[in-house]
Amino acid sequence: MRAAVSSTSRSRRRGVRGGRSVAAWTARPELPESPAVWDHPLPQAAAQDRLHFAAFDLVTSSRAELRELLREWSRAAAEMTAGELVGSANSVQPAPPDDTGETVGLLPSRLSVTFGFGPSLFGRRGLGLRRRRPAALAAIPPLPGDELGDRESGGDLCVQACSDDPQVAFHAVRNLARIGRGAVVMRWSQLGFGRTSTTSRHQDTPRNLMGFKDGSANIRAEDAEAMRRFVWVGSGGSPAWMRGGTYMVTRRIRMLLEVWDRSPLADQEATIGRDKYEGAPLGGAKESDRLDLEAERDGEPVIPADAHVRLASASLNGGERILRRGYSFTDGVDESLGQLEAGLFFICFQRDPRRQFVPIQRRLGAGDALNEYIKHVGSAVFAIPPGAHKDGYVGETLLG
Amino acid sequence: MRAAVSSTSRSRRRGVRGGRSVAAWTARPELPESPAVWDHPLPQAAAQDRLHFAAFDLVTSSRAELRELLREWSRAAAEMTAGELVGSANSVQPAPPDDTGETVGLLPSRLSVTFGFGPSLFGRRGLGLRRRRPAALAAIPPLPGDELGDRESGGDLCVQACSDDPQVAFHAVRNLARIGRGAVVMRWSQLGFGRTSTTSRHQDTPRNLMGFKDGSANIRAEDAEAMRRFVWVGSGGSPAWMRGGTYMVTRRIRMLLEVWDRSPLADQEATIGRDKYEGAPLGGAKESDRLDLEAERDGEPVIPADAHVRLASASLNGGERILRRGYSFTDGVDESLGQLEAGLFFICFQRDPRRQFVPIQRRLGAGDALNEYIKHVGSAVFAIPPGAHKDGYVGETLLG
Repeated sequence: MRAAVSSTSRSRRRGVRGGRSVAAWTARPELPESPAVWDHPLPQAAAQDRLHFAAFDLVTSSRAELRELLREWSRAAAEMTAGELVGSANSVQPAPPDDTGETVGLLPSRLSVTFGFGPSLFGRRGLGLRRRRPAALAAIPPLPGDELGDRESGGDLCVQACSDDPQVAFHAVRNLARIGRGAVVMRWSQLGFGRTSTTSRHQDTPRNLMGFKDGSANIRAEDAEAMRRFVWVGSGGSPAWMRGGTYMVTRRIRMLLEVWDRSPLADQEATIGRDKYEGAPLGGAKESDRLDLEAERDGEPVIPADAHVRLASASLNGGERILRRGYSFTDGVDESLGQLEAGLFFICFQRDPRRQFVPIQRRLGAGDALNEYIKHVGSAVFAIPPGAHKDGYVGETLLG
Repeated sequence: MRAAVSSTSRSRRRGVRGGRSVAAWTARPELPESPAVWDHPLPQAAAQDRLHFAAFDLVTSSRAELRELLREWSRAAAEMTAGELVGSANSVQPAPPDDTGETVGLLPSRLSVTFGFGPSLFGRRGLGLRRRRPAALAAIPPLPGDELGDRESGGDLCVQACSDDPQVAFHAVRNLARIGRGAVVMRWSQLGFGRTSTTSRHQDTPRNLMGFKDGSANIRAEDAEAMRRFVWVGSGGSPAWMRGGTYMVTRRIRMLLEVWDRSPLADQEATIGRDKYEGAPLGGAKESDRLDLEAERDGEPVIPADAHVRLASASLNGGERILRRGYSFTDGVDESLGQLEAGLFFICFQRDPRRQFVPIQRRLGAGDALNEYIKHVGSAVFAIPPGAHKDGYVGETLLG
């Protein structure tokens, strides 16, 4: 099997003529019933600092072309994550270089590249995939408070590139888009400048643009039991081709920062349910303190009934959790207001969005005190297939 | 005098209640005839990795309000570059925090904050500045090949924040915009994800999104003679209030990457006039080799007549040079084409754009082989006043 999509060669600078690295290949036994031994580079990697995400629409109706696209994408991802240039023809004077070149001399900086399939892919004519869509890969239904834009939502395929160097992440999306010419067109994309989640015990909790620590109660990759229970697709529920995979939901969440910034500190903290600087649950002292949803003071709950952390907590959601892995973004100026457009590009991973993201967000969308300060403007869901075998490609379990 | 705007306190993490640092203050003698001893944090700092730039329009006609804005901006910039929170009221429960908080726990990462005045500022009613506009601060005239958008050009004031951490740069622009509410509205902004220039002998030359090293022949800050001759305003030409300052030109340059990526390597190299990987001038072997504009092979110039490096060279421009300090950007997807919108946010500094940027770009816009692959879509020019005295503010030489 190969870790087709995670960088294992951090110390090498890319050269132009360097031979293809084999460091990115691993040889683990295939145990599809035990998802933990598959290579799932993204959710289990400590979140990198920068993101470039792109959603594509398919413009071919040939299954063979789709298969070839995924083969080429997998090969290019393996090269890029190993710190190699894409392709072999990069010094041939009469030909366009295979690689666009802007990462020559850069380290891969923990680059990971992840591919996903949207529900609309399975409805495309000619692919023969109509009956293979997992039930869990249902379009996200309308949710309370949604203000979604068509151009910022959906997509037949997605590519997520994460790296500590934004030029490396950009390069990955650009070169995959280039390889995809004729088979896909880019539908939307998102640059994330700072991570807003911690996915490893070795990482500090970062702050989102509201100035609060985000993801204090997130699933950590080291928690194998939680990863198995909430993130990786096992033997039940999803079709066999998804075993060892997961489902990703993305939500583009605009923050009404001007409004937020005018709120008193006490209101901000009551809205979130944590104190701003330490990140401790209200009534607690440390970030790692347990949420005490029963605590009262003067007959009122210490963590308000509509506080974000209460409504998002596992105990209010039938024990369900998700792995969050989002990024802060800014997209220039809202011309009508003369204010920065910025927010959170929310990304989460789970075994079944119908049982995890959707009910959690339904509850939040209906009652979260935070809704006064945010707008959900984009939404998408993708099936993330399992990692590939050494001579295979990501997606082969579906496309054969 | 104070280095109001350069980070000198790299090793400190921001705390919430930490006392104001005095490390950012220096005490150099004031020698306005000798610009090198002024504090000019931006052009002389080794270019940081990330940029957040914003242009503002003034919405007050009160000179006192403009003065107060610049005073507050200078104070906040001094705090942020020293690794402190903005303001003092950040833990007062009934009040909105002065600082938005997303950099708590982060290092300033060499943050610099620079303020500039656009030509339109001097024409605003009520400010009494009409006769104080430097002749060198003329609006950039229409240039060959311009395809400028109104919303991406101009501005009465600008704020440029550079840092190795994009969240720190974003935070600076956001907090200054917040301080400016009621006096300014944001007109446009630009996030730059990777530097495309080297401004110090200690930096490698980075690559732009065409995959070429950019800025090999740039002025380096260590070259005091070139900085004095080409960058800092001295005693002649500009009004006294600009002595020790400089002029900044910004150009938003979209790259037609799809077209570029289909060009053979030989064409790419002939277009630029350097080889792609080493960055050596054509006919040379090393990046640092001198441009030999006379060299011929088979009766043809080795560096083509329309090569970018030839037309941009000092020898073709009456000996004039500029200090480049630009960043790569991407702004999502061009919906009509399904392609990445990306390019170079070009920034340069000089003593007089009328003698430096404008004629250089006129020559390039008319004849540069690179024009086939780029479009200039945004343009602005700003006077960057000199650094401030300890108890003063940036802009005091103009506003008193």
